[in-house]
Amino acid sequence: MSDTQIFDPDAGAAELKTALARAAAEIETSIDTLLPPVTGGEAVLLDAMRYATLGGGKRLRGFLVTEIASLFGASRDAALRVAASVEMLHAYSLVHDDLPAMDDDDLRRGRPSTHRQFDEAIAILAGDALQTRAFEVLAEEATDADPAIRVALVAALARASGAAGMVGGQVIDIEGEGKSLPLEQVRRLHALKTGALIRYAAEAGAILGRAGVKERAAIAAYGRDLGTAFQIADDVLDATASAEELGKTAGKDEAAGKSTYVSLLGIEGARAEAARLSGDAVDSLKLFGAPAATLRALARYVVERRN
Amino acid sequence: MSDTQIFDPDAGAAELKTALARAAAEIETSIDTLLPPVTGGEAVLLDAMRYATLGGGKRLRGFLVTEIASLFGASRDAALRVAASVEMLHAYSLVHDDLPAMDDDDLRRGRPSTHRQFDEAIAILAGDALQTRAFEVLAEEATDADPAIRVALVAALARASGAAGMVGGQVIDIEGEGKSLPLEQVRRLHALKTGALIRYAAEAGAILGRAGVKERAAIAAYGRDLGTAFQIADDVLDATASAEELGKTAGKDEAAGKSTYVSLLGIEGARAEAARLSGDAVDSLKLFGAPAATLRALARYVVERRN
Repeated sequence: MSDTQIFDPDAGAAELKTALARAAAEIETSIDTLLPPVTGGEAVLLDAMRYATLGGGKRLRGFLVTEIASLFGASRDAALRVAASVEMLHAYSLVHDDLPAMDDDDLRRGRPSTHRQFDEAIAILAGDALQTRAFEVLAEEATDADPAIRVALVAALARASGAAGMVGGQVIDIEGEGKSLPLEQVRRLHALKTGALIRYAAEAGAILGRAGVKERAAIAAYGRDLGTAFQIADDVLDATASAEELGKTAGKDEAAGKSTYVSLLGIEGARAEAARLSGDAVDSLKLFGAPAATLRALARYVVERRN
Repeated sequence: MSDTQIFDPDAGAAELKTALARAAAEIETSIDTLLPPVTGGEAVLLDAMRYATLGGGKRLRGFLVTEIASLFGASRDAALRVAASVEMLHAYSLVHDDLPAMDDDDLRRGRPSTHRQFDEAIAILAGDALQTRAFEVLAEEATDADPAIRVALVAALARASGAAGMVGGQVIDIEGEGKSLPLEQVRRLHALKTGALIRYAAEAGAILGRAGVKERAAIAAYGRDLGTAFQIADDVLDATASAEELGKTAGKDEAAGKSTYVSLLGIEGARAEAARLSGDAVDSLKLFGAPAATLRALARYVVERRN
């Protein structure tokens, strides 16, 4: 009997829903605890940081941290801090992406975007301070007693989110507007813009859990394929779903003249690519057996979701 | 003979000029080495990061790191990395401060500000990526073999630059426009907006140099008073110097209806306060004797400078 047959590959779909909801609630509490209270002459900044980060979202990145940390037996308190940190980093990127000089988006998670709720200056600064706090939370002793683990998390988050990661991908995306990019460049764009942070979230769980080299490589491959599958599914949703379903503006990519998986492969081709990557992500989890059932279900969920 | 009389208190003025020029050149090289080369679809981002950070500036923060690290015998290579990091952090804050939604400034160091040279979206993202890189440089092994030192630097920089430091101060400043703030609030504003990062730069040198508790407290006091003196001198310059002298727009505070040390104390009162703090900063260096002559000269220089 092979390693893959000792558990039901479709197991975990029901558990996933429960685990996602539980983690989202716990991550929300963790963020709330880790953000400064609203006080002083800078109250509006602290208020905007909370507005941008609290109040929902799928918490996919934070969930990856907690699930994978749990797979390796890491402390849940530590995992929730690292999960809150990556969600702060993600929230900062959304606040800045929504600015008039960038995507000029009025709507985020069904609410006014941060610069619409406050103003542009406060949105820029709230994003800046959320990035800072994301790194600070990782560096604080409560995250892990071992400074080598904390600094490894800081280095990994920086690599994933800076010019060689998320922000670099964002610029390739902007520069590609109105141009026809080849598939290879669209792949690199997404590997950086969305993929790097999702992959980081997976690896962060493995770092916290002191995973071995082989386990960490498997988790990195899972995170990489999951991230790409997620982004392709996002392109498909942008092309097919309504703003009401998405809780944000739909059809933005086509309006901006962007090369996407959908414009290059068509909707069905993009769906097939996402399904293939989702399968690869599931395969990467072979060595973890049954305890990884929820992570397998997650890889299937990201390509089937409606928002 | 007391500790303070074994050296000439006015020594170091000539050495300061030499040391500042030498450090500025070395820090420039360090930044150049530590920023990614300009390539790929994100080339414009990497170009903007370099434009915003390279090509001059006093490098006061970086100089503080290298001088104080040297006082404690830390490696100069390590100090130059930490100096480059704090200058990247400072540059990010200037790029974002100059944006149309913030100070809307077209001029910086006598050149077009980053959003004028590139565009707003690239300026926002270049600032974001400079912040990230500042943290990444601290976290990298080349900065110090001991992860505890690296993570202490990350935590200290985050504390100094986030909502409880530089960005918080920036928001108090914006919120105070057109209002009359009491002196106590102006003090807190500046302690956060400019003071925190200057104090960090001093403390970072002490962290790198494994300074003891007493030495570190003295350096923190020096950095705190130096930072405040520097900011008051900046207020005085804004009210009295020309744009040509400053290399940036002059008279901005009054135009924005800001409460400053000058509006609260008058030009002579502000100059006297800066001189008093400069003297306090000098006094904090007593226990270091002659090797701190350049740092004493720096405390005098920041209140006498013309730009």
